[in-house]
Amino acid sequence: MYSQVVSKAVLKRLPLYYSYLKEIPEGQFVYISSTAIAAALDLGEVQVRKDLALVSDGGKPKLGYLRESLIADLEHFLGYDNTDNAILVGAGKLGQALLDYSGFAEFGLNVMAAFDIHPSVPVTEGGKKILPIEQLQQYIKTNRIRIAIITVPAEYAQAVCDQLVEFGILAIWNFAPVRLEVPEKILVQNENLATSLAVISRHVQAALREKK
Amino acid sequence: MYSQVVSKAVLKRLPLYYSYLKEIPEGQFVYISSTAIAAALDLGEVQVRKDLALVSDGGKPKLGYLRESLIADLEHFLGYDNTDNAILVGAGKLGQALLDYSGFAEFGLNVMAAFDIHPSVPVTEGGKKILPIEQLQQYIKTNRIRIAIITVPAEYAQAVCDQLVEFGILAIWNFAPVRLEVPEKILVQNENLATSLAVISRHVQAALREKK
Repeated sequence: MYSQVVSKAVLKRLPLYYSYLKEIPEGQFVYISSTAIAAALDLGEVQVRKDLALVSDGGKPKLGYLRESLIADLEHFLGYDNTDNAILVGAGKLGQALLDYSGFAEFGLNVMAAFDIHPSVPVTEGGKKILPIEQLQQYIKTNRIRIAIITVPAEYAQAVCDQLVEFGILAIWNFAPVRLEVPEKILVQNENLATSLAVISRHVQAALREKK
Repeated sequence: MYSQVVSKAVLKRLPLYYSYLKEIPEGQFVYISSTAIAAALDLGEVQVRKDLALVSDGGKPKLGYLRESLIADLEHFLGYDNTDNAILVGAGKLGQALLDYSGFAEFGLNVMAAFDIHPSVPVTEGGKKILPIEQLQQYIKTNRIRIAIITVPAEYAQAVCDQLVEFGILAIWNFAPVRLEVPEKILVQNENLATSLAVISRHVQAALREKK
């Protein structure tokens, strides 16, 4: 099932279904229909039905999906049920925050350690190691790491990215506000907090101007 | 200039120009052309020229933009030069991390304090206050806060969001993996880390399968 190409739009909706299904109080629904999910999330019914058909073949006419099975199918499809190990480069404030953020484990990501040119502390409060960047290559190799998080300043991000790719990383989660160039097979998932802040700031300014 | 409606695609590119321009070593360019920026960032020249024309009227034929002025114009356009105060609701690990993350200040966001039903500590390591949720309304009013960050678990996010809107918040930066319903004039900027992780996980699994 993983070999299917799934659009990013679908991948954005699936976690919504997942968190909605997990939120329903125990015992409230044993079965749930795509119609009910669509209504709860204010999405089109046809769209929800199609999305869920990608993920699970457990839908029954008139009844819908067994909630527990659908949660498990979503978990599997989204890769939340198999833990991926990752490392992080750039153990500044944001890096350390992400390193200690326990929420990722829920979604199958285990950030094992961080690397920095000048580790300010040897371990984070959460007990994760911060190692000198010289150990990066060996660590990736030994632990067969495929995922890296970049939280270095923008001006170092491309150089770090090039090294990570050379060392065998397949997917990069980039928090540096810069566009990274990578070979075709490497995925870069950008998390541009600066863009979000610009969107927010402009909205607030426009809204306040309107009020005057 | 703020009253212009700017597409989200443009707002995503502008921070890239901004960080690129800030990265150029001092003195390397006094003037820089949209052609040079387009080449450096691997973007279309026409697109870059149009984007920059939105932001600055300082472009000169053959010379391009005075780099320092263009940086200032981008800062102004993106709202990075006027500091917005914000509060955060949900002082768990992620909440505390964001609260202490000094990087936001660079982009004009000052996260003043956090609120929680059960504050685990009274202040973060960075010295930011974590207050009981009962004080939320008064704090927003007294400090004329317009921006709120939501980092509560998904199941509480809508209730928190409703309260924030009632208390006068205009823009919500939502880190909870759930779709929030808000009145038309309120902006919700979603930062769905769970979606990013799903995208990353699926890519790695597909890439490893291909290798076999």
